[in-house]
Amino acid sequence: MRLTTVGVDADDTLWHHETVFRLTQDRLAERLAPFADRAELTAHLAEVEGRNLRFYGYGVKAFTLSMIETAIAFAGDAAVGVIREILAAGREMLTHPIETLPGVEATLKRLGERYRLVVITKGDLLDQERKIAASGLGALFAAVEIVSDKTAETYRRIFARHGTGAGEAAMIGNSLRSDILPALEAGAFAAHIPYALTWAHEIAEAPVGCPRFAELASITEVPAWLEGVAGP
Amino acid sequence: MRLTTVGVDADDTLWHHETVFRLTQDRLAERLAPFADRAELTAHLAEVEGRNLRFYGYGVKAFTLSMIETAIAFAGDAAVGVIREILAAGREMLTHPIETLPGVEATLKRLGERYRLVVITKGDLLDQERKIAASGLGALFAAVEIVSDKTAETYRRIFARHGTGAGEAAMIGNSLRSDILPALEAGAFAAHIPYALTWAHEIAEAPVGCPRFAELASITEVPAWLEGVAGP
Repeated sequence: MRLTTVGVDADDTLWHHETVFRLTQDRLAERLAPFADRAELTAHLAEVEGRNLRFYGYGVKAFTLSMIETAIAFAGDAAVGVIREILAAGREMLTHPIETLPGVEATLKRLGERYRLVVITKGDLLDQERKIAASGLGALFAAVEIVSDKTAETYRRIFARHGTGAGEAAMIGNSLRSDILPALEAGAFAAHIPYALTWAHEIAEAPVGCPRFAELASITEVPAWLEGVAGP
Repeated sequence: MRLTTVGVDADDTLWHHETVFRLTQDRLAERLAPFADRAELTAHLAEVEGRNLRFYGYGVKAFTLSMIETAIAFAGDAAVGVIREILAAGREMLTHPIETLPGVEATLKRLGERYRLVVITKGDLLDQERKIAASGLGALFAAVEIVSDKTAETYRRIFARHGTGAGEAAMIGNSLRSDILPALEAGAFAAHIPYALTWAHEIAEAPVGCPRFAELASITEVPAWLEGVAGP
C-alpha cells in the first residue's frame, strides 16, 4: 500500500480554536443573562448559525453576525451595548494569538520526511491565512487549501492536485463530519483526533469498523498509524 | 512575444457588483437620515471599512459588519431597527442574482480559444464561488483563484501555477489598485476596464505611459488589444 499525501485540518487539529469561540459565547451568555438563560441562548445561537451557514459559510465573521442576530432576538432595543461588545469580541478573535497543540510541530516535521503535507481548512480566507502564518507551521506544508466546505469532492480534487489521488492519501482532523466522513467517501484513509470541544454543527457518528478509519488520542500517534497502514 | 494566460477579475469586470453595494449603502443613508447627512455617513462608512480591512478582508460579510458599526456610531441606542435591516440586506446581497456585463460571455469564449483563462478575485470564499456558479461562466475558465488580497506576489504565484509565468500573462479588471498596478509590478500585461462606480478603497492613479498597460472601454476590446501585444 503506497501512501504519498497527508491532509491536515487546522482549527482544533493544529491549534486551539473552539475554546476561543466558547469563551466569546460565554461572555455573550453573561451579558444576555437578564433576557435569556444560558441553555436557551446556546440553543438559539446554534439554530441561527445553522440557518446562516448557507449565506455566510464558516468563520469568525459569520459567528459575529449570528451573535448580533441572537442578541437582538433576546434583548431587542436594549441590544446596542451588547452588539458593540460583540463587534469588539469578533475583532479580538481575528487577532487572538495562536497556541499550537502539544506535539504538533515535531509530528509534522517527522511526517514531512515521508509524505507531502497539505493543510485543508475552511473558514475566512484572510483569517485562516493569518493563523497559519502566526502558527509558524506554514513552511512544514507543501500546500495550503482554504475551502468553503469539505465534501468528498473537495478531498478528491485536492488529493489529485497535490498528491497522487485520494486512494494514496490520508486525512487527519478533529471533525468527523468535515474531516473524516467525506475523506473516507473520497477513498482516503482518515484518522479522527478529537478535540475537547466540538461545535454543534460538526457533530457526527464515528464510522466504527471502517477499515480505513482510526480514532487517535493525539497527533503524535499519526506516524505509527500511517506506518501500520502503509508498511514501514 | 508569447502570451499564454489571461487573468480576469470577477466583480465589476464580469458582472455588476458595486451597484449592489451602493444601493444597500443608499438605503442605510436613508434610514440614518435623522442622525446624519448622506456625505457624512458615506465618509464615516468608508473610514470604518478601511479600518476594518485588516481584520475582515473583503466581501459582503465585512461590509455588513462595517455598516452595523456605522449605524451604532450615528444612531446609538436607536440603531437596533436599522441593524435588523442591515442583517437582512447583507443576506440579500449574498443571494442576489448575477447580471453579467455586456459582451462578457462571447469575449471569454473567443479568448479561451487562444489563452488559458483564470478568474482572480477577492472577497468571501463562499460568495465568490456562488457568483461564479450563478454567472454560468465557470466552465469557460481553466481555474478559479479566490485570494485574500491582490499583490504582485499574488499574480506571480498564480501565473506560475496556472500558466507560464507573469511575463507571458495579461490581467484584465476594473480596479487600478488591485488588478492593474500589482499585475504590472509582477511583469504581466494589464488592461483596465473601468466600471461606472469604484469603491473608495480601490481608487488609484492610472500608470499612463507604461508600455504593458492599456485602458479599454469594454471587455470586447480585449482580444484586439492582446493581438496587438502578442502578434496575430
